[in-house]
Amino acid sequence: VLCVGLDPDPSRIPNHLVQKLGIESAVTSFCREIIRETSPFAIAFKINFAFFEALGEHGFTVMRSVLDALPEEVLTIADAKRGDIGNSASFYARSVFDNFGYDSVTISPYMGQDSVTPFLQNPGTCAFVLARTSNPGGSDFQTLQTEGVPLFRYLANEAVSWSDGEIGETGLVVGASDIEALQVLRASHPLTPFLVPGVGAQGGSASNVMSAAGSGPILVNSSRSILYASADIDFATAAGRVAEETRNILGS
Amino acid sequence: VLCVGLDPDPSRIPNHLVQKLGIESAVTSFCREIIRETSPFAIAFKINFAFFEALGEHGFTVMRSVLDALPEEVLTIADAKRGDIGNSASFYARSVFDNFGYDSVTISPYMGQDSVTPFLQNPGTCAFVLARTSNPGGSDFQTLQTEGVPLFRYLANEAVSWSDGEIGETGLVVGASDIEALQVLRASHPLTPFLVPGVGAQGGSASNVMSAAGSGPILVNSSRSILYASADIDFATAAGRVAEETRNILGS
Repeated sequence: VLCVGLDPDPSRIPNHLVQKLGIESAVTSFCREIIRETSPFAIAFKINFAFFEALGEHGFTVMRSVLDALPEEVLTIADAKRGDIGNSASFYARSVFDNFGYDSVTISPYMGQDSVTPFLQNPGTCAFVLARTSNPGGSDFQTLQTEGVPLFRYLANEAVSWSDGEIGETGLVVGASDIEALQVLRASHPLTPFLVPGVGAQGGSASNVMSAAGSGPILVNSSRSILYASADIDFATAAGRVAEETRNILGS
Repeated sequence: VLCVGLDPDPSRIPNHLVQKLGIESAVTSFCREIIRETSPFAIAFKINFAFFEALGEHGFTVMRSVLDALPEEVLTIADAKRGDIGNSASFYARSVFDNFGYDSVTISPYMGQDSVTPFLQNPGTCAFVLARTSNPGGSDFQTLQTEGVPLFRYLANEAVSWSDGEIGETGLVVGASDIEALQVLRASHPLTPFLVPGVGAQGGSASNVMSAAGSGPILVNSSRSILYASADIDFATAAGRVAEETRNILGS
């Protein structure tokens, strides 16, 4: 159930790595050590594109080196939150699935069906569509009432229906900060994969999430509380310890 | 007023370039020749990140070489449609403004205020927030009634208010396919910069856009009808001709 989020923030990576290796190699080395210590407890890894793009022109080369360090059996999530018209979306899908070989991707749905379906064309993959997000601004639009339900419910119903007859599957991003939304969405979509961020640094409780989410497929993501468990030379073993604790609370 | 959109699709770039140079250099060369012939008629260039990311790990290096070919005086738009929680958004903003030096960026607003404000921290820049988009799926959610108005109007009001007191400015993306939305949004936001895609290949009429948009600041984007005006060795001069025609219809 545990998904480890790789959000390598240069200002929080242990100083000794950055000074010894320079920033690009420090990011690779940091992520590789985190992966080694946490992968026994994780079923998936979520790579946050923002932190790699911020490295500059070679950010995607650094991302490739991190992907290469992941064990074969884990699921990979491209946390890219892309969303563009059909023609552009198909090029983003090519980047994520064909070039980088990710198993799944996060998608922003505001532009509607033709912005999502290009991510449903690859066998065995999943497009996690943003439904109810865990950040403060998540309540600015997602909970507005429309057609008698909150927008996130209306949108989730639509997005799940878009995978009918497609090769890939729609999943939903549902943040740990709104347990009621998690229950409501699970009741409507018992078999849909949920990606649940917001546990740990963002304040969500892992055990509350598990009791709300029922028995359907779920990945619970934790990023910062694992990555930055220690800023010292023991950062990787500390991360492994927090990953193990989180996995134990999640119960599988 | 004219913004030329650079969406270099490898399957539509003239064959002689791809065969002679390989795909990465062909994209650079194609864009550079388009820039040379169209920049006399354009005030802005919009770079669509999807097409560069689809090139693979070196896509952002290709993007850099295209940016380097733009005249100093044109406005640059990072058409990236990013949208993530505040912490991640600040890293995307670093990529777009600090690393690449863009003047503006397109942003997907579904995650709310903290996903947009990190793009309002750079003096003289603009974050064009998706309001009413020109693609078929643009009507799936954007026109839903909420709080007595269509979602796109509610969202535009919020997004424009978010730039109060910030250093950067909020703009709005309003597609050419919904002239009524353009009129309504302009009436509410007379001084907000509008980026209007959907003219040309997507079917919108340039003259209808200009009469609907009134006298407020506006950029009208055309991509495919200019880029692929010819698939032959005369592609650049053909693109220049269509850019000039479009500029003349736009009237400035």
